[in-house]
Amino acid sequence: MNSEQLAPQASEALRRMRDARPLVHNITNFVVMNFTANTLLASGAAPVMAHAPEEMEEMAAIAGAVVLNIGTLSTPWVESMLAAGKAAAKLGKPVVLDPVGAGASKLRTEAAWRILRETGVRVLRGNASEIMALHNADSKTRGVDSSHEAAEAVDAARALAKELDLVVAVTGKQDMVTDGDTIYHIDNGHELMSCITGTGCSSSAITGAFLAAEPDTLQAAVAALAFHGLAGEYAAKKAAGPGSFSVAFLDSLYETTPELLAQGARISKA
Amino acid sequence: MNSEQLAPQASEALRRMRDARPLVHNITNFVVMNFTANTLLASGAAPVMAHAPEEMEEMAAIAGAVVLNIGTLSTPWVESMLAAGKAAAKLGKPVVLDPVGAGASKLRTEAAWRILRETGVRVLRGNASEIMALHNADSKTRGVDSSHEAAEAVDAARALAKELDLVVAVTGKQDMVTDGDTIYHIDNGHELMSCITGTGCSSSAITGAFLAAEPDTLQAAVAALAFHGLAGEYAAKKAAGPGSFSVAFLDSLYETTPELLAQGARISKA
Amino acid sequence: MNSEQLAPQASEALRRMRDARPLVHNITNFVVMNFTANTLLASGAAPVMAHAPEEMEEMAAIAGAVVLNIGTLSTPWVESMLAAGKAAAKLGKPVVLDPVGAGASKLRTEAAWRILRETGVRVLRGNASEIMALHNADSKTRGVDSSHEAAEAVDAARALAKELDLVVAVTGKQDMVTDGDTIYHIDNGHELMSCITGTGCSSSAITGAFLAAEPDTLQAAVAALAFHGLAGEYAAKKAAGPGSFSVAFLDSLYETTPELLAQGARISKA
Repeated sequence: MNSEQLAPQASEALRRMRDARPLVHNITNFVVMNFTANTLLASGAAPVMAHAPEEMEEMAAIAGAVVLNIGTLSTPWVESMLAAGKAAAKLGKPVVLDPVGAGASKLRTEAAWRILRETGVRVLRGNASEIMALHNADSKTRGVDSSHEAAEAVDAARALAKELDLVVAVTGKQDMVTDGDTIYHIDNGHELMSCITGTGCSSSAITGAFLAAEPDTLQAAVAALAFHGLAGEYAAKKAAGPGSFSVAFLDSLYETTPELLAQGARISKA
Repeated sequence: MNSEQLAPQASEALRRMRDARPLVHNITNFVVMNFTANTLLASGAAPVMAHAPEEMEEMAAIAGAVVLNIGTLSTPWVESMLAAGKAAAKLGKPVVLDPVGAGASKLRTEAAWRILRETGVRVLRGNASEIMALHNADSKTRGVDSSHEAAEAVDAARALAKELDLVVAVTGKQDMVTDGDTIYHIDNGHELMSCITGTGCSSSAITGAFLAAEPDTLQAAVAALAFHGLAGEYAAKKAAGPGSFSVAFLDSLYETTPELLAQGARISKA
Repeated sequence: MNSEQLAPQASEALRRMRDARPLVHNITNFVVMNFTANTLLASGAAPVMAHAPEEMEEMAAIAGAVVLNIGTLSTPWVESMLAAGKAAAKLGKPVVLDPVGAGASKLRTEAAWRILRETGVRVLRGNASEIMALHNADSKTRGVDSSHEAAEAVDAARALAKELDLVVAVTGKQDMVTDGDTIYHIDNGHELMSCITGTGCSSSAITGAFLAAEPDTLQAAVAALAFHGLAGEYAAKKAAGPGSFSVAFLDSLYETTPELLAQGARISKA
């Protein structure tokens, strides 16, 4: 695909997602549950948050995608994530994994790996430190923030994508998405996005929404990040600081049309 | 009661609630805990969130009402809800149940029914799909959103109200409240309320606050929904999208006086 | 120290905290997790929320401070708090305890006391009712709000500080900080801070951030409360109600420079 076609394709993916209004089943962390639900609603999808093991199969059955996020994990929640991921995979529904804090503790790194190995994760979306930590257990993560740029994680991302046969999305100043062969860069976004909690998590959730309506995994992930980043750019113009940015970000997700995305997406093929 | 008296009566219920500043004990879902606490504070009530089984009796003793919400339920939390509901009923304190996602999973439908049967729920507040699912186990709920209008749930609401001797409040484009005999319609509200997460939950919580200060259950529920919906209308005037709507909604709950409610409430008897 | 030096010292503590960008490990309540994380980020610190017992030692190792908050406690979470507090103390890292609702239930009062006795809490930050309840088990707390002014808690605060060899910070209309001997008053703040949930909790979290970079515990606690209160004053100027206040508060934490704090801090020695 030529680079000129990338923005229109992202625009088309947004249109398809909005038309489908997919139900996205999230098992995510306590910090961002509200923000994640609101970003999905503002984007045009419908969220459901549920973690009881008894209802994982029913939720997978009605959902268009499942998003697993280990931000405030504990052993019972990891079991629920595994059950949800397996149920989704069985039904052929896409699963996104957000390995929050992988590398910061053994529990997190191992939980992420169990989910990767035992369910059918289609997109792994993390920051550079998390992706590098999953690739190389010796890499260290400082809490949940990245201490690396996305570009440093290229090799780790490609290796993981090939090994696990999935798409890896690394977000940061510049985002990168790869299936192990092709690499896309997305230059949308704004630095205020790192001044509030949950924008990494919301990019994962929105990736799930796009995957529910777009069969091409690589294009769905690219489109989701361009859309998410572009909304961040618009929001920054209206923001005086992180509080007003957060509010404007939800407004911008709601207001960003496929037409605006076609104009504003900055996607390139490496 | 004549329809002309309904708005003044709602206004009086708001005044009584504000004067009492009731403590509302919530066992609610992780997604909306912050928003629920803030809507209660903005409305003039005081929230307490607590779910440890060891403290359910003490919380019921100091609270004016208990609000149970199964949005992110799990078996241990359902047990806490049952303990809180029973303790409140024993002390003659009102209990509100918000059966989030009833019909979407067996666990949810059954948990809602256990709470209805084993505690003294005074108001059951849900969307049309949830109320219909509780009335008829064959009805399906798509996640936590309603796929039905409130009007479709009239029969289910009346039947449940009679069977369980409580008030059923069904919210949607138009809200409906019934004790099984009388039916009230409330035409306040704005469509942006369904673009953020937690407005159903906040209407349940605020119903709890009104119940703590207003002995007439039916009037308390009607007044709470009119107040809640009117604040939504005011907020929509200041909103550019769901983010700014959410902020303006809290401001509007705070600013909506009994006088404004007397003027703005649109309540009618069917 | 002369009173004239107090504001410059607070300013210096803020500068040091911003330079260090400390990672603050929080085990806090579900209601305020998002708000707490965002207040830390806006202030210039980095939050991590984690409660799994398996990762408490690793989190303590990478964190600059640990903040424990019992707002929605349960027995397993108290165990995690004890593990986190012990791990931090072992490494010489500061621990802050926010005893939310101490006095409202036996579980809360006892959990707070266990944390005080079994870990190395350096600052105990609560409202007047909570501090009085911890000092005297007969004192009653109405939910999580204070029914007393900070001034009423002077004796309780001094006694606890002496008995436990720590600093007690009591927040309210006027804040008070004492090590048992010296008493500081901070007159920053605004009444809108009590109209949203989580400002008490955020003051505790920010105290943790200051402690991570300022070796003088008493001065760190005083500076954190002055900074927090001053941001509240600025925010109130931009707010129409509690919703817009909350947004403006995050913006103000972000915008409050050491220079502004040097000018605006109102700290006095009793």
